[in-house]
Amino acid sequence: MRRETGGKAELSGAVREFDVLSRLRARLSGGMRPGEVHMGDDAAVLSAPTGRQLFATDLVVDGVHFDLGLGSVEDAGWKALAVNVSDIAAMGGLPTHAVAAVAAPSGTDLDGLFRGLEKAAAEYGVVLVGGDLSRGSALAVAVAILGEMDGLSPVLRRGARAGDELWCTGPLGGSAAGLALLRAGRGREEPCVQAYLRPSARPGEGRVAARIGATAMIDVSDGLAQDISHIASESGVGVLLESVPVFAGACEREALGGGEDYELVFTAPPGTPVV
Amino acid sequence: MRRETGGKAELSGAVREFDVLSRLRARLSGGMRPGEVHMGDDAAVLSAPTGRQLFATDLVVDGVHFDLGLGSVEDAGWKALAVNVSDIAAMGGLPTHAVAAVAAPSGTDLDGLFRGLEKAAAEYGVVLVGGDLSRGSALAVAVAILGEMDGLSPVLRRGARAGDELWCTGPLGGSAAGLALLRAGRGREEPCVQAYLRPSARPGEGRVAARIGATAMIDVSDGLAQDISHIASESGVGVLLESVPVFAGACEREALGGGEDYELVFTAPPGTPVV
Repeated sequence: MRRETGGKAELSGAVREFDVLSRLRARLSGGMRPGEVHMGDDAAVLSAPTGRQLFATDLVVDGVHFDLGLGSVEDAGWKALAVNVSDIAAMGGLPTHAVAAVAAPSGTDLDGLFRGLEKAAAEYGVVLVGGDLSRGSALAVAVAILGEMDGLSPVLRRGARAGDELWCTGPLGGSAAGLALLRAGRGREEPCVQAYLRPSARPGEGRVAARIGATAMIDVSDGLAQDISHIASESGVGVLLESVPVFAGACEREALGGGEDYELVFTAPPGTPVV
Repeated sequence: MRRETGGKAELSGAVREFDVLSRLRARLSGGMRPGEVHMGDDAAVLSAPTGRQLFATDLVVDGVHFDLGLGSVEDAGWKALAVNVSDIAAMGGLPTHAVAAVAAPSGTDLDGLFRGLEKAAAEYGVVLVGGDLSRGSALAVAVAILGEMDGLSPVLRRGARAGDELWCTGPLGGSAAGLALLRAGRGREEPCVQAYLRPSARPGEGRVAARIGATAMIDVSDGLAQDISHIASESGVGVLLESVPVFAGACEREALGGGEDYELVFTAPPGTPVV
């Protein structure tokens, strides 16, 4: 795992914010066993006799998370699976099994879609075990994923402490820059464009973070600024962001606000040896 | 559990059919441990040290599985959860946890949607533990659900044997008839309309079927004729359907082909005492 020198920051003070999902979570707080986490983190944590199980879902929609005018249906399939792997990675877990529900306009290249799902599943060691298919006006792919902790404790958003340092598993803004390049007519050989069309999840890095005692973690899906604010509000700390690791070809604005990079951001006590 | 006298039939001969999902299943047959079932049944069966776990997903889309011009957003939420419970019921399992991914046009009554999801979750003892929300051109709700067998063996589609009898947990065609009534301007107090807007899953009946030794089971989602053909082709048997249990106010055509009734159809050896 690289330490991005530009990604160092310190958490201090107190910040608190609430939104629609917080309200929803408050309504859904029943039925939780000790050690479980429902709603409001990257994945739910369920208790099982043999350990903790992770369960999450993430949806990608044409025109929102991908654009079939710019990328392929196979890219959409890849992304749908990879973003779910990223949710498990952001807890420090190992992804195991996934199901995919697909709403597709008639004429959609379903073979291409499943090829993308399968390639990403193979890349991350996930077994695709079921699915559902329906007509729909725009292509939408909802994957749900299971993961296991295999002896480690899940890293939640809410464990950061004042004085912790902030780490990032890679440079940010590549996805947003790639989208801009595609719109300007550039090809998929550009690294930024690859970052947009075929984002990489970081389950290996997430395991390392869990092993070395990361106190909080999240994946960069909405943009660094917004995603860090989740750690801050959940943990009751503030964030001092001194600088940001920027993807080659992207700008700082894209690194801070672009999102969909799927690098992991985590906090750890000062002096933690990060391999 | 009622025995619908009209629902009795016998399985004999041999039928085999293949479709897109079969091709897909063949491509995805890797990574399966003994006792596991991936793709092609109502739910996947995963092996866990403590028993079998069920994992399924089902998607409902405005204009396909419900119609916001006829029912409410709360109805859509109910249906999205209930049809997933039905997938677990069709294996003889107990539903435990669910996640919901929602694509919604702006202005969608999300509180109403979550109210419907929550009401169905409460009805069936399911805990809603996570979700995702995106913009979308039409409301689509993809729920994924976990279940457990709690000591029983999952009832697959492929276990029916020549000579078995066919059972159904209730009358069919109500949903299709209810949709027709709604389109004709009738209100939601009609039982058929309720069957369409707020279908009931049958997890209790599914447990009984698993306990008494049902050999194959499926839920009636696509229509009795089509759903039985899945049991037939998976089991390598033919079906002799002598008569069909019809929902009051529906016709036989709706009972055979309407679908979305979410009753369970299962096979059992002749003379099986069905409680």
